[in-house]
Amino acid sequence: MRLLQRTIDKIGRLNQDAMMRASARLDALTHPPGSLGRLEELAIQLAGIRGEPQPVFPRKAVIVMAGDHGVTEEGVSPYPQEVTAQMVLNFLAGGAGINVLARRADARVVVTDIGVARELPDHRDLRNRRIANGTRNMAREPAMSREEAVRSIETGIEVFQEELDKGLDLVATGEMGIGNTTASSAITAVITGKPVKEVTGRGTGVDDVGFQRKISVIEQAIRHNAVNASDPLEVLAKVGGYEIGGLAGVILGAAAARIPVLIDGFISGAAALIAAEIKPESKMFMIASHCSVERGHRIILDYLELKPLLQLDLRLGEGTGAAIAMKLVDDAVAIRDQMATFADAGVSNKD
Amino acid sequence: MRLLQRTIDKIGRLNQDAMMRASARLDALTHPPGSLGRLEELAIQLAGIRGEPQPVFPRKAVIVMAGDHGVTEEGVSPYPQEVTAQMVLNFLAGGAGINVLARRADARVVVTDIGVARELPDHRDLRNRRIANGTRNMAREPAMSREEAVRSIETGIEVFQEELDKGLDLVATGEMGIGNTTASSAITAVITGKPVKEVTGRGTGVDDVGFQRKISVIEQAIRHNAVNASDPLEVLAKVGGYEIGGLAGVILGAAAARIPVLIDGFISGAAALIAAEIKPESKMFMIASHCSVERGHRIILDYLELKPLLQLDLRLGEGTGAAIAMKLVDDAVAIRDQMATFADAGVSNKD
Repeated sequence: MRLLQRTIDKIGRLNQDAMMRASARLDALTHPPGSLGRLEELAIQLAGIRGEPQPVFPRKAVIVMAGDHGVTEEGVSPYPQEVTAQMVLNFLAGGAGINVLARRADARVVVTDIGVARELPDHRDLRNRRIANGTRNMAREPAMSREEAVRSIETGIEVFQEELDKGLDLVATGEMGIGNTTASSAITAVITGKPVKEVTGRGTGVDDVGFQRKISVIEQAIRHNAVNASDPLEVLAKVGGYEIGGLAGVILGAAAARIPVLIDGFISGAAALIAAEIKPESKMFMIASHCSVERGHRIILDYLELKPLLQLDLRLGEGTGAAIAMKLVDDAVAIRDQMATFADAGVSNKD
Repeated sequence: MRLLQRTIDKIGRLNQDAMMRASARLDALTHPPGSLGRLEELAIQLAGIRGEPQPVFPRKAVIVMAGDHGVTEEGVSPYPQEVTAQMVLNFLAGGAGINVLARRADARVVVTDIGVARELPDHRDLRNRRIANGTRNMAREPAMSREEAVRSIETGIEVFQEELDKGLDLVATGEMGIGNTTASSAITAVITGKPVKEVTGRGTGVDDVGFQRKISVIEQAIRHNAVNASDPLEVLAKVGGYEIGGLAGVILGAAAARIPVLIDGFISGAAALIAAEIKPESKMFMIASHCSVERGHRIILDYLELKPLLQLDLRLGEGTGAAIAMKLVDDAVAIRDQMATFADAGVSNKD
């Protein structure tokens, strides 16, 4: 708990002076002011986060947390639980969507086993930080203990810190865990107060019967565990997941270190909810990379007051949308640093 | 007219076999089918355009057409007309938004003067294909003759063809022309049948008084010229612009050569409307890169049944949104070609 508290205490606010200087720079460039839209807003936020008008982000990482969910025994996913471990091996072999898209963004992929159900072989690129062999079935009991919830967040902070120590300017969240849209819908329902059926989607593609079952299971988990919505650690413990806690830790760690953090899809969004409930100022360091087709994601983004950069109808997770959005961060930086000013180019400004 | 007719006659349909093969390839990759959303749809469309399941797009160009508009004398823009020529020089010097974003996409920028109001100095990278020193004031008379309208389209076809001959796999449209949101709103109102006030925005940032004047001027231009909505060449001639005709030519040329064409913002959208009215099948070769804040753009996209890839609140034009979207094309290609299959990776598929 001490690492978590220290991290929370370090989270500050955006630097207004840097933001004003970034804004002034953008207004001087040869284009109608604001006409590069979200890229300009992004450039201003990045300045506020880093505390300088023209920060750059050459060193990038997607931190992928993998964990399993006991609730899969309720039949909430069309994929078997062993897919979590299989996909971790796929990440390590470089064959998953996130590997491809991270390469395109020149970002490294950092894979952590924070609670996969089965042992994974040692691998140079795999952090073994397993808290347990998956969560317990939240439909019947709390997914984890409060201590484990804190430990999952602190694990995320530590993994982030290791990457920061290696050199890091921009971080993205990613995850793998069969059953984790179920946990994410539960977290979203509890924290935003929306009915379960409004924040639950089909995940990897559950059929109609499975979809109704998924909604019932989430409702049961929330009711049975008597979750206190105003205590984010309790929410995480009772209806969350290790990888979700881990990503909340990554987000809090990034905010404390003033590193912009690209939030990926629905599960990363649930982690962002936990982080924001723990420390509301952490929102200012978040960049919503995309809005997924998983319906609860829009509700999370509205609740966090984050505008997504992309709407590509993604629903894969892994950090894929965040990796795509990393290139938009570099676009914003390029615009800001490489465009000519009205004065330099001899272009007439507005009359 | 012969070049235009020959080009129209060459425009075919998407290759269904290549699309099915691309789709089968995507479904075999380690992810829930369709979970990469628009990137997968894009990969399938690209296959259909090129007639092969796994086409690649290393050689890219943004074709920027610049032209002036006589209607600027009505006070429809906050920027003086000379900005068109000044921005062309900025393009040639590499200092504009499109230069920065095209470099980021590894695309060349091809600048054509198709009707700028003032002489431009010779420059190695500037195609001088000026039809006239800007259009005439459409509020009082047709912007151009029908012959000039045809010539503007054929100029676009020729410029596209020159680039194709140099080597081209993917093309994007871009433009510069003070006053061209006025012409684009007029085209959009006439072709879609929507009221002028629903398809008119503030362009580069006209004030309230100027905005009302802009709407009146467009209404007057449409009424005074008695535009026949069912004749796209007449629409282009009476209320269009040279750069808009040029881009319609680029789009038709690309469709005829089966090269995917990324449509940029509102003005490029107006050019796409003209192209689609001339040859509806050309729509299948278009990729809508983004939806701009210029309100008529959404109406164009709906009319053309195109879904934009990006929503970045852009309103700069120049091809900037299309250049950003080029990287999404490469993302779609990378996903398709580099992800492991379920079989290769030993990952269990759906039960």
